Amino acid sequence: MILRVDRLQTEMPPPSDPDPAGAAVVQELLGGKFGEMSTFMNYTFQSFNFRARQGARPFFDLVSNIAAEEFGHIELVSTAINTMLTGAGERNSLPDPEDVLNPQHFIAGGAGTLVQDSNGKPWNGDYVTSTGDLVEDLTHNFFLETGARNNKLKVYEMVDHPAARALTGYLLVRGGVHQVAYARAVENLTGADLMKMFPSPRIPTDKIPECGPHIEKGEHKKLYRFSRSDYLELAAVFSGPHPETGDELEVVDEPPVGAPAFDLPAQEGVFAPDYAPAEIAEIAERLRKQAGLPDEPTGVVANDGNGVVDKLKNAVSA
Amino acid sequence: MILRVDRLQTEMPPPSDPDPAGAAVVQELLGGKFGEMSTFMNYTFQSFNFRARQGARPFFDLVSNIAAEEFGHIELVSTAINTMLTGAGERNSLPDPEDVLNPQHFIAGGAGTLVQDSNGKPWNGDYVTSTGDLVEDLTHNFFLETGARNNKLKVYEMVDHPAARALTGYLLVRGGVHQVAYARAVENLTGADLMKMFPSPRIPTDKIPECGPHIEKGEHKKLYRFSRSDYLELAAVFSGPHPETGDELEVVDEPPVGAPAFDLPAQEGVFAPDYAPAEIAEIAERLRKQAGLPDEPTGVVANDGNGVVDKLKNAVSA
Amino acid sequence: MILRVDRLQTEMPPPSDPDPAGAAVVQELLGGKFGEMSTFMNYTFQSFNFRARQGARPFFDLVSNIAAEEFGHIELVSTAINTMLTGAGERNSLPDPEDVLNPQHFIAGGAGTLVQDSNGKPWNGDYVTSTGDLVEDLTHNFFLETGARNNKLKVYEMVDHPAARALTGYLLVRGGVHQVAYARAVENLTGADLMKMFPSPRIPTDKIPECGPHIEKGEHKKLYRFSRSDYLELAAVFSGPHPETGDELEVVDEPPVGAPAFDLPAQEGVFAPDYAPAEIAEIAERLRKQAGLPDEPTGVVANDGNGVVDKLKNAVSA
Amino acid sequence: MILRVDRLQTEMPPPSDPDPAGAAVVQELLGGKFGEMSTFMNYTFQSFNFRARQGARPFFDLVSNIAAEEFGHIELVSTAINTMLTGAGERNSLPDPEDVLNPQHFIAGGAGTLVQDSNGKPWNGDYVTSTGDLVEDLTHNFFLETGARNNKLKVYEMVDHPAARALTGYLLVRGGVHQVAYARAVENLTGADLMKMFPSPRIPTDKIPECGPHIEKGEHKKLYRFSRSDYLELAAVFSGPHPETGDELEVVDEPPVGAPAFDLPAQEGVFAPDYAPAEIAEIAERLRKQAGLPDEPTGVVANDGNGVVDKLKNAVSA
Amino acid sequence: MILRVDRLQTEMPPPSDPDPAGAAVVQELLGGKFGEMSTFMNYTFQSFNFRARQGARPFFDLVSNIAAEEFGHIELVSTAINTMLTGAGERNSLPDPEDVLNPQHFIAGGAGTLVQDSNGKPWNGDYVTSTGDLVEDLTHNFFLETGARNNKLKVYEMVDHPAARALTGYLLVRGGVHQVAYARAVENLTGADLMKMFPSPRIPTDKIPECGPHIEKGEHKKLYRFSRSDYLELAAVFSGPHPETGDELEVVDEPPVGAPAFDLPAQEGVFAPDYAPAEIAEIAERLRKQAGLPDEPTGVVANDGNGVVDKLKNAVSA
Amino acid sequence: MILRVDRLQTEMPPPSDPDPAGAAVVQELLGGKFGEMSTFMNYTFQSFNFRARQGARPFFDLVSNIAAEEFGHIELVSTAINTMLTGAGERNSLPDPEDVLNPQHFIAGGAGTLVQDSNGKPWNGDYVTSTGDLVEDLTHNFFLETGARNNKLKVYEMVDHPAARALTGYLLVRGGVHQVAYARAVENLTGADLMKMFPSPRIPTDKIPECGPHIEKGEHKKLYRFSRSDYLELAAVFSGPHPETGDELEVVDEPPVGAPAFDLPAQEGVFAPDYAPAEIAEIAERLRKQAGLPDEPTGVVANDGNGVVDKLKNAVSA
Repeated sequence: MILRVDRLQTEMPPPSDPDPAGAAVVQELLGGKFGEMSTFMNYTFQSFNFRARQGARPFFDLVSNIAAEEFGHIELVSTAINTMLTGAGERNSLPDPEDVLNPQHFIAGGAGTLVQDSNGKPWNGDYVTSTGDLVEDLTHNFFLETGARNNKLKVYEMVDHPAARALTGYLLVRGGVHQVAYARAVENLTGADLMKMFPSPRIPTDKIPECGPHIEKGEHKKLYRFSRSDYLELAAVFSGPHPETGDELEVVDEPPVGAPAFDLPAQEGVFAPDYAPAEIAEIAERLRKQAGLPDEPTGVVANDGNGVVDKLKNAVSA
Repeated sequence: MILRVDRLQTEMPPPSDPDPAGAAVVQELLGGKFGEMSTFMNYTFQSFNFRARQGARPFFDLVSNIAAEEFGHIELVSTAINTMLTGAGERNSLPDPEDVLNPQHFIAGGAGTLVQDSNGKPWNGDYVTSTGDLVEDLTHNFFLETGARNNKLKVYEMVDHPAARALTGYLLVRGGVHQVAYARAVENLTGADLMKMFPSPRIPTDKIPECGPHIEKGEHKKLYRFSRSDYLELAAVFSGPHPETGDELEVVDEPPVGAPAFDLPAQEGVFAPDYAPAEIAEIAERLRKQAGLPDEPTGVVANDGNGVVDKLKNAVSA
Repeated sequence: MILRVDRLQTEMPPPSDPDPAGAAVVQELLGGKFGEMSTFMNYTFQSFNFRARQGARPFFDLVSNIAAEEFGHIELVSTAINTMLTGAGERNSLPDPEDVLNPQHFIAGGAGTLVQDSNGKPWNGDYVTSTGDLVEDLTHNFFLETGARNNKLKVYEMVDHPAARALTGYLLVRGGVHQVAYARAVENLTGADLMKMFPSPRIPTDKIPECGPHIEKGEHKKLYRFSRSDYLELAAVFSGPHPETGDELEVVDEPPVGAPAFDLPAQEGVFAPDYAPAEIAEIAERLRKQAGLPDEPTGVVANDGNGVVDKLKNAVSA
Repeated sequence: MILRVDRLQTEMPPPSDPDPAGAAVVQELLGGKFGEMSTFMNYTFQSFNFRARQGARPFFDLVSNIAAEEFGHIELVSTAINTMLTGAGERNSLPDPEDVLNPQHFIAGGAGTLVQDSNGKPWNGDYVTSTGDLVEDLTHNFFLETGARNNKLKVYEMVDHPAARALTGYLLVRGGVHQVAYARAVENLTGADLMKMFPSPRIPTDKIPECGPHIEKGEHKKLYRFSRSDYLELAAVFSGPHPETGDELEVVDEPPVGAPAFDLPAQEGVFAPDYAPAEIAEIAERLRKQAGLPDEPTGVVANDGNGVVDKLKNAVSA
Repeated sequence: MILRVDRLQTEMPPPSDPDPAGAAVVQELLGGKFGEMSTFMNYTFQSFNFRARQGARPFFDLVSNIAAEEFGHIELVSTAINTMLTGAGERNSLPDPEDVLNPQHFIAGGAGTLVQDSNGKPWNGDYVTSTGDLVEDLTHNFFLETGARNNKLKVYEMVDHPAARALTGYLLVRGGVHQVAYARAVENLTGADLMKMFPSPRIPTDKIPECGPHIEKGEHKKLYRFSRSDYLELAAVFSGPHPETGDELEVVDEPPVGAPAFDLPAQEGVFAPDYAPAEIAEIAERLRKQAGLPDEPTGVVANDGNGVVDKLKNAVSA
Repeated sequence: MILRVDRLQTEMPPPSDPDPAGAAVVQELLGGKFGEMSTFMNYTFQSFNFRARQGARPFFDLVSNIAAEEFGHIELVSTAINTMLTGAGERNSLPDPEDVLNPQHFIAGGAGTLVQDSNGKPWNGDYVTSTGDLVEDLTHNFFLETGARNNKLKVYEMVDHPAARALTGYLLVRGGVHQVAYARAVENLTGADLMKMFPSPRIPTDKIPECGPHIEKGEHKKLYRFSRSDYLELAAVFSGPHPETGDELEVVDEPPVGAPAFDLPAQEGVFAPDYAPAEIAEIAERLRKQAGLPDEPTGVVANDGNGVVDKLKNAVSA
């Protein structure tokens, strides 16, 4: 089972100019064959289906734990898309049909992420490979991360919205860690030195400006343990020098600190969360009081406490 | 983001006679339109896409927190399917084609769960409704839980394998809590008294023997908080009498204790985790030592420590 | 727009022994590429999309009118499937998973028809060809009816349940009329003598015992006008000798008389229409009275008035 | 079975400036999850699959009858799309690829409607929920109409072509009637007062200018009976005050008068109905004479008799 | 089995201005229902599945041999798409999201063809009709070629890039041959004179400028034998006058001479074939030497030997 | 382009007892994610999309040439399926619905192969990965062959029909060659020693009895050149010792000799090739004569000349 933490794994920028066409392209990183739904679900179901897991515990722990990090990645991609759509769903200012690539962002969603790729095709369970054969599944995972890295690099090239760039900068670094981790696992089981295949695609991550700060913080060599209690055997697999930088790979026994999300403003033109969101806020306030909760909302958001939400809304609608 | 706990939300039975046709039917609860992938992903993406969440915090917390519980449900359905397939993938004893409904359990998987429904159709992102309109999304969720309950009842009727029965017994009770929770949320926002719609389908859960022990433990009236730090405002929505039993609804500020999973035995006939799993265990042991980890695997499984795995395998293959 | 008549286009047999595997095969005639959803939707959308229809009125009338008949065909296929499933969804007697081909008949449906083919794949809009080019659309329609006839013949061969046989016997005759009609339309526009292609597949319908009574009634040469007011120009296309029998083709200026449907009994094991259907009947009776309607239900069904429903239920459950 | 009437349920505007991108967005109302194909097919198959329908006659009549109205809705959406595409498929003036969202409007179709959503994904049978459980199916239908209303409102916001506005204005009013009808049905069966959930989304229809004329005519409170002979028990369910206006709900024992469709001009650039449509008209004229039909086409269209077609074509191509 | 020849069936133009939106439209001819994947795979599987083929040898040979030509057609469509995408994937110059219709050309592919239609929907096996009934399969093939011709004509109208025009000019002529061939086959088996249905759509190919040179070379009346050893009985079916020109149909006992493909330049912005393609060339050179192969690449390309690749790249990036 | 040779790449057994359920399982090797349609289409489109191919000629030649061999593999899988279905489609002896897994073999096909996987899901273009990045595409191909080998091994285990065993025996050996070839290609480009990953899954091919004869003939170490004229640089990549046997890898400069296919008997119960196939044979004979072709069919089949077809039919129907 999981516990949820109401924070993003990394800081993301606030909304700025809306970019619905760019947001449609970023969907590939959410629901594409090599998107984060695929990484999340592949590793999750491989961990569920893992047989004789005690005997192969370090590998079970590795797959299970990376699965947990991937949940945070679908969250980050969604955050980027929602940020890019913010301002495009305000009352009387929906984009013209010819300016969007994915009309369902507005018709089916409320200026919100869809479980689709960049062509509007829904993610589907066929993208999950869980054969039960450990070497094959790990080989698959290494390849999947390679494809994911390729896609992230190209989304980086094609979309220049700050949210897309912040997203791909971070995911390239973290995806790189997973690519290394699975390669190490295959090496441990077969003896093949996959480290020589890095980087693939052959552009080093440190050439990407938005990756820089994360590499400086060592994010490229750390495998976080996303559990307070379990998955203790990661270091049995994740060790040795990083194939690109030579830094020693490192297991961190806790999750990253992360950052609160922005409370993205209502988009009344698409009824998110309502045509008149203030009414919902009033109801919520009343319910909170009835339940003996604090007067102010207890959640922590990036734009808390001092009118940032309103300023943002003004900025966006200006 | 999430943290992962290597335990199931409830105890599940060990493998017994394999039942591949039954396992194919149980897939509906995993990847069907009303299966647990749908509940998990609907609430997850609704929480990601939630706009003006501070103002609507109790509702955001409710959706986000139930999403977290649903991860445990896809885990439980997978556990049931894998349990039912155990013994059907052993060397030289794969089932005859005419005895299976879903051959991919053995050809694509390693006697393992697929991200499909009972007709072998992959789950897809089209099953996610996330409109951003709070009342609509909550109405949807209430309906989705109703459909899920219908499906669980029927799988219960059609499949009598102990793992399927244990699964549906538990999920009917927990799904019922979510059905109530979303109904209460709609009531709070609109004033409509959806409590009168319970039970739907109109068969009370307490008629199901496998639900009994869970109801006795009060599982039908508790909403667990699946977070150590967040989602503090559940009680603002989840309160009042249970529509069927009259018990007071209750928020529990921690996750359920749960139970360890069985370490399901290798199925060498489908190479899960290998044609010769002992070799993998040897490699793992060596890696564990190199990393300074304990000699014995650190993971906790239901059949730990005293040869239960071997006995099970004997029992199954007998 | 349409008006609906609560009658089937032909008489169908009452439920007898359930045949869930056969019902799954019959689904091909509902939701397969060459099934009745395809014929209905192809002609319907071709009629909606028909440009310059005044100038081509006889052809517009033909396509529009046959579309209307096809609604009755999806109704008949559903009736056959539901009849074949009756008795397989009763309380405590759902079929074993290994005895079904399509578990969703019971899990997703209430022993009811699905919008799927015989492999459980949903019908989809890709099966509609509506190019706007009249000759091409009519050529398509001729081919579609040919494929539909092929499928019906094979379902006839493979499934021997009385409902399946009654269904295919009728549909072969009526589909044959449409095949002739579209061939005549192409002939009229191009001069090619498609009559020489009949029968295709090359087995004459009169070899099928279940077709006999319909042919005796001349159903193979009549095109019914499914409108009280419109589509008056059918005879401009539908005329000349029938390619197999030599009978003169004939336009009938009204719909067929048809027959009432059986009121198929409740299947309480799958909650259709409820776990306790008598309660619904009570509510309905009360509502009927409140509205000043007659005490007895006003609908006409094949098994009306004298306890046939109960007898049927007994027969089925015996 | 059905009878067909060659009229639209409401008047639609003639073609004006083509709007292919807007037409692609309107496709969501045709083939989207919450589009009219979904409403039509859900209610149609629920009526086919309805067990013990005599006992539950008022509900059977309600579902069956609304199904019939929905056919008129897919017809209206198609009419709007075709109207918006008119002028974009003329010889030597097809739109540039970068000005369209759905190229298949021109490549697969003849400037005609596709059975797809706004992302070009085909409608599929998975969008049909027909569980056989009456309360659940009605709950579903209420939710489906809620989602449909949400989609219509957003298409209204996003697309300003007169045909799209006329369409959504009408459908919002009529869909509202169905939303109320299903809510009333659930109320009757369970006692829950769903009337309090209106309007959902929470924007009253009378705020939409294009809804005004229909509301003035009382279209928001009338349930038409789309049958000359059957479905007599609608009033047992559809009664009481309208939840938004307080007007008494009303069953009208005949279909609406409706209006003739425009005979949309040929689009020779996409061969609809031909590269040289006049030749088809000549053949049709000859056939009509041979069959003893009147010299002039018998069909009634909005632009009949006085050269309107030609004028329209000139207007469009100007 | 097949042998492969590294030549295109006809000459194609070099890359010029990139046209990503046009390339997305041309995808319909690759992966659409009536695209070349459909023709290739329909005839291929019909030939595999052909029963009693000795007795029906001329028909088996016809279908098998046309299948072989169709491989060359998917190759040509891909060539056109890749040509149109060339220049749009260069480093730092990827197109803006709003200028593309199919972002996956750049995110999933390397400025390369996808197995999709013009809406980004993957081609699927449902587009294959292989009933085994010879008359029906041939009728289908005639219709399929008709639909393919319709699609090609419309892509010709909508996309004016030189590569798209060269492609459709050639395919219209060659597809016309197949349309005639299948019509003749049906005629031979049934006696119906399908020659009267030509041309369909009713625009003669010789009106298309890009078809002219191919017609002059007699490409419209020749059926090439794509085998050195087999399929000797084509002339038993493919004979008689061409339905449009009256020329005598002709079997050519060898494949067309064809032309070498352009070696399309690297697109480094999408890592095709690499971020630094020169490194791959160096490795290849070394491997070639080690294997005792000539110093220069042995392959023949249209832009061989004299720096054309570089010039092209300059031209494109200018 | 391609040339076609009317021979199979290896000898296949004649029809024996029909095995429709087994045939449904074998479909996974045709249309599954890791089936031969996937290998064929991945390499084919990678070759079409290959940029700067002259510089990377040995790799282009490798991918292009293996693509050509894969056509022969889809042909072999189809042959196996059709062989297994033979006898199950004879007049009046179609299998009962409960004895089949894929009813479309008989309803849609004529006891013939479908372009589907073992769950009846159509193969689709999403299974093609063609990124243009050479290292990534080759890594993918190595993984794809690994998955394909896994699937073949399991089909071997699950299906014991002689045709399935002959098929998997051959494909395991030939697929192994491709797995090695792509691994060598990656090694050459990156230096990683993937040879250490063999065999994967870790069961050596020589343990499979049906592989033995092929290994004895050296089929496990030979890469055939499937071109008379091109793809001359295979040896630059395909060289060195075989990772399992140590034998030197070897390029053979011509295709394998192969064997003629059996002329599978008509299945009149499913109209393949007709309800009365003798009539087709008569027409064919007449056409052959008219065209001046030999009296006897010119094609070569395994059961030629001496009544084998009839004997087979007797054997099967006995």
